[in-house]
Amino acid sequence: MGLELYLDLLSQPCRAVYIFAKKNSIPFELRTVDLRKGQHLSDAFAQISPLQKVPVLKDGDFTLTESVAILLYMTRKYKVPDHWYPQDLQARARVDEYLAWQHMALRRNCLRALWHKVMLPVFLGEPVSPEMLAATLAELDVTLQVLEDKFLQDKAFLAGPHVSLADLVAITELMHPVGAGCQVFEGRPKLAVWRQRVEAAVGEVLFQEAHEVILKAKHSQPADPTIKQKMMSRVLAMIQ
Amino acid sequence: MGLELYLDLLSQPCRAVYIFAKKNSIPFELRTVDLRKGQHLSDAFAQISPLQKVPVLKDGDFTLTESVAILLYMTRKYKVPDHWYPQDLQARARVDEYLAWQHMALRRNCLRALWHKVMLPVFLGEPVSPEMLAATLAELDVTLQVLEDKFLQDKAFLAGPHVSLADLVAITELMHPVGAGCQVFEGRPKLAVWRQRVEAAVGEVLFQEAHEVILKAKHSQPADPTIKQKMMSRVLAMIQ
Ligand SMILES: N[C@@H](CCC(=O)N[C@@H](CS)C(=O)NCC(=O)O)C(=O)O
Ligand SMILES: N[C@@H](CCC(=O)N[C@@H](CS)C(=O)NCC(=O)O)C(=O)O
Repeated sequence: MGLELYLDLLSQPCRAVYIFAKKNSIPFELRTVDLRKGQHLSDAFAQISPLQKVPVLKDGDFTLTESVAILLYMTRKYKVPDHWYPQDLQARARVDEYLAWQHMALRRNCLRALWHKVMLPVFLGEPVSPEMLAATLAELDVTLQVLEDKFLQDKAFLAGPHVSLADLVAITELMHPVGAGCQVFEGRPKLAVWRQRVEAAVGEVLFQEAHEVILKAKHSQPADPTIKQKMMSRVLAMIQ
Repeated sequence: MGLELYLDLLSQPCRAVYIFAKKNSIPFELRTVDLRKGQHLSDAFAQISPLQKVPVLKDGDFTLTESVAILLYMTRKYKVPDHWYPQDLQARARVDEYLAWQHMALRRNCLRALWHKVMLPVFLGEPVSPEMLAATLAELDVTLQVLEDKFLQDKAFLAGPHVSLADLVAITELMHPVGAGCQVFEGRPKLAVWRQRVEAAVGEVLFQEAHEVILKAKHSQPADPTIKQKMMSRVLAMIQ
């Protein structure tokens, strides 16, 4: 049995893993776990990964969670171009710095933006107060400024002149609020040009394909009530 | 100019960086940034690191933030024993998995436990409701169970038979609620034995030295009012 990836492209870390594997021609079996159908809460998936989150990598009997760990595993196991995770000491440290920073910053804000603006009201039928939504979007704005000032600066990509895992993790994250209809790149010309560079580096077709699901998230069908009941407390824990 | 580390041992990621550097005889200049005196909010420190958080590594004109990135930088730049970040593909992936998971899990809960139980009421003079504190400690408990069941399991250390960066980051984190007076290891014999193993691997004297400040955090003096005013919104953002 070769590499298996358990993914739902609705999820931003899954998109990063998917794009990375495809772009680098890493052969894998796609195992789709439809979060909106609650497939991650099945006993079968709990056998694979007890925390019941995606993405999950399975390589024979080795199971790995956490997108950052999965991406690093793939850079090491397969021959991929150096720029993704450069050998150079300082360049690599810049990638690591971004990958560590994003968890509590961009990741949190982008996830909240999508759920507060779209997934809670449309999918779970739970309205979010305008104040709450405004606070979430204001926080996102602050974090975008940090992304621009501290990480991108005047470079072509987040960690230097070439595209790296940092850009891939960042762009798939930012497409969450974009999918929710937020104006992430408007009024941010530097980030907008960076986005075009990353899309070009990844390839437009693959980029579009990976983002089809999130760009349609606004039109999610309301959740089945039993699924909603099972998901609610997990969703609240995830976006807190 | 050799390696400089900007640290306050009150901070858990700083303790991990400090212990790692000392244990591996990495020569560095300690630059203490006293968070309770608001030294991180000075213009001088903003020049060094615009986000004004610790830890920060400076190696000549190369400045690096984020404890995980700093630890990885040190494993690469200096000769350190393999067990900290093993070359073996799967063992290394286990360390990466833990380092990625902890940000939104143990780190968040341990930070909140310390602030809700001690730092807000004692240092900032802001009482925390019993309900809020109880919720924080209940969340911590759930996360400790995941640490035990998913990460430690029946192994000697989190990522396998030897001590690694994962253990160092985890133990320094857990000492936050311990410093706050939480019974983290009581009723958790597996974690308690693991803690002893990690302390022994690090060396008792170094471990004690690194944790002196946090174990006295309960006796923090009330913050100077101007410092409190400057810190409050940042603290709330950090522990949200
Ligand atoms: N830090 C993890 C996050 C994994 C995660 O939270 N996945 C979400 C989707 S984005 C999930 O599966 N949530 C389902 C749930 O928690 O019920 C990573 O980067 O892989
Ligand atoms: N993810 C960062 C966290 C850095 C951080 O939040 N440091 C805290 C101390 S634990 C800090 O400097 N806080 C001061 C502030 O935000 O005002 C790391 O692991 O280095």
